[in-house]
Amino acid sequence: MKVEKSSDVSKSPVEIENAKGVEIRWLISKEDGAENFAMRMFELQPGGFTPLHSHKHEHEVFVVQGQGTFVCEGQEYEFGAEYVIFVPPNTEHRFKNIGDSILRFLCLIPASAA
Amino acid sequence: MKVEKSSDVSKSPVEIENAKGVEIRWLISKEDGAENFAMRMFELQPGGFTPLHSHKHEHEVFVVQGQGTFVCEGQEYEFGAEYVIFVPPNTEHRFKNIGDSILRFLCLIPASAA
Repeated sequence: MKVEKSSDVSKSPVEIENAKGVEIRWLISKEDGAENFAMRMFELQPGGFTPLHSHKHEHEVFVVQGQGTFVCEGQEYEFGAEYVIFVPPNTEHRFKNIGDSILRFLCLIPASAA
Repeated sequence: MKVEKSSDVSKSPVEIENAKGVEIRWLISKEDGAENFAMRMFELQPGGFTPLHSHKHEHEVFVVQGQGTFVCEGQEYEFGAEYVIFVPPNTEHRFKNIGDSILRFLCLIPASAA
């Protein structure tokens, strides 16, 4: 069982190629006993982005704060707070902060991909 | 693929015994191609609550707006916006809105429980 303010969960930089200004908090994971899927919070600084990439697992995304663009299979979509985004497996995608403040979104993945 | 404002996803009342003032939006589910887990938004009116109940699947919860109490295995916890809550399988639990405005939280479950 876990009840915690998400901002109290530790944050670490995402140090992968072609990412800029991205940090992650693992809010709920196997460490908490979550066997099926994991909840992470991504925080992107203004101008920050995740790499254009694809993988065999899906993403379930909920935008908590900020303004961004989501590129998926070559199409670009704008989003703001409280948007929900489903990224199917094996689709090339990228998130970018286009606002003046931080962009924060939840991104959930199957535990097998964590 | 799905990109949608969560408030545009249709909402329906939760009509189960011992629930009061509860509505649900299925933000991401098998209908969207999500095979592993489902994202729902629960909306509880002031004074609203979910039943005290347990089941064999876990919950992963993120509080979007409002103030509430979470009871789990007889212990009560207060929470507000941006709290994260993990409810392990087979633990008796309940959510209640103790604020003056709506309480909204994401609650994710394995697809097998949807």
